[in-house]
Amino acid sequence: MAGAIGIIGGVGPMAGLDLARQVFMQTKATSDQDHIDLFLVSCPRLIPDRTEYLLHGGDDPAPGIEACAQRLSAMGAAAIGVACNTAHSPRILSRVRVPSGVVLVNMIDSTCAFIAEHFGKGKIGIIATLGTIHTGIYDEYFARYPDLELVKAPEQTNRSVHEAIYHREWGIKSTQRPTPQASEAVKGAVRELGQAGCSAVILGCTELPLVFQGQSSFEGIGLIDPTEVLATELIRHTQPDKLIGIKL
Amino acid sequence: MAGAIGIIGGVGPMAGLDLARQVFMQTKATSDQDHIDLFLVSCPRLIPDRTEYLLHGGDDPAPGIEACAQRLSAMGAAAIGVACNTAHSPRILSRVRVPSGVVLVNMIDSTCAFIAEHFGKGKIGIIATLGTIHTGIYDEYFARYPDLELVKAPEQTNRSVHEAIYHREWGIKSTQRPTPQASEAVKGAVRELGQAGCSAVILGCTELPLVFQGQSSFEGIGLIDPTEVLATELIRHTQPDKLIGIKL
Repeated sequence: MAGAIGIIGGVGPMAGLDLARQVFMQTKATSDQDHIDLFLVSCPRLIPDRTEYLLHGGDDPAPGIEACAQRLSAMGAAAIGVACNTAHSPRILSRVRVPSGVVLVNMIDSTCAFIAEHFGKGKIGIIATLGTIHTGIYDEYFARYPDLELVKAPEQTNRSVHEAIYHREWGIKSTQRPTPQASEAVKGAVRELGQAGCSAVILGCTELPLVFQGQSSFEGIGLIDPTEVLATELIRHTQPDKLIGIKL
Repeated sequence: MAGAIGIIGGVGPMAGLDLARQVFMQTKATSDQDHIDLFLVSCPRLIPDRTEYLLHGGDDPAPGIEACAQRLSAMGAAAIGVACNTAHSPRILSRVRVPSGVVLVNMIDSTCAFIAEHFGKGKIGIIATLGTIHTGIYDEYFARYPDLELVKAPEQTNRSVHEAIYHREWGIKSTQRPTPQASEAVKGAVRELGQAGCSAVILGCTELPLVFQGQSSFEGIGLIDPTEVLATELIRHTQPDKLIGIKL
């Protein structure tokens, strides 16, 4: 039996479920039994806030991530993914070790490779929480791809995207389904990055793809969901014959 | 540290995620770290089709369910739930053993107890897949509550609900979001059971609550989501102080 897929969730809890959901959606299956074995470990108290650690020297999340990876490996996971953009900072993830024979699939590296393959070269935009933007995680990975240029929106736009995610009344985290106000803020940001010459925009936060309901482009601008890319890579590392693949 | 919540998923895969999502939604939390530890094991090949076993003598799903429960117990789960109505047939679940100190929380028993507490006595309707209806699982549990009468819709209505779930073009499993056609079929069935004197209707399949977008009643008829009830019971068995509770 092929190895299982392991998911380190809890960062946040819903992001772990979103990654698992995308694995199931990307699997060729006509019955329950066709699905690949999957384990999810959601132990948020083991993994302190990533943004806090990167920006203000808070508690180190790396040991907790490693503990979760070891549990998943012990259960039989052959490929493990972490459902959190910020945890992918090289300052965190490069210190997480997994047992030999187990692959820790890197979401952001996979996303960059996916973009390089499908969009070749040029400007690629990003929208995300202020934490993801200010910690510069995507910048660090994009530095390895000289043909690609990462473009951020003006600070004012980043703040409106952040509000669309976090606002207590109309933010997507509160309402679950995007309100017209949140949708407009997010779509406006994508439009702005398109006008700045970006052929595609990375939706660097789990809540953002909800605005586009699974569409792969918006007004001619490609939309890239790193969670979806990670889901396909987890399948590719375990049972590649079952991978549906992302439609562009 | 209090024990963790364990979820036996894979039956089907999306139902396991729905149960986990409802646990997170029912938890009092203002940060990721406030959430209760949760493990999900999704090994669908270990657990053969439950309806097939009950109606046609197919392979026994009980040993696979027990194997998943043992894995979850070994990881530290103190309360375990199975995200599948059909698996709750006493002919299956009564043979699943868990280590001492671990509770296997019964979704349908919990649902009956919830109904007895909040609706007292009288007629309670059920809509579900034909598999759940024909295997008579809810009938077996309701037999323990003489004040409650379980009412099923006419076979024609049950078939239209089944189609609303499974139809390849407009069924909820295919479209993810309920189409108008699926919504009308499901709402019509609830209305019909209300007219037959039911004060509440059990939405006995993971896809059905999507039609009502979290509403707890429809045209004065109470709506009961067994997955939501199970989620609250899993929290009650691990960290009851963190339980939000179902609003009626």
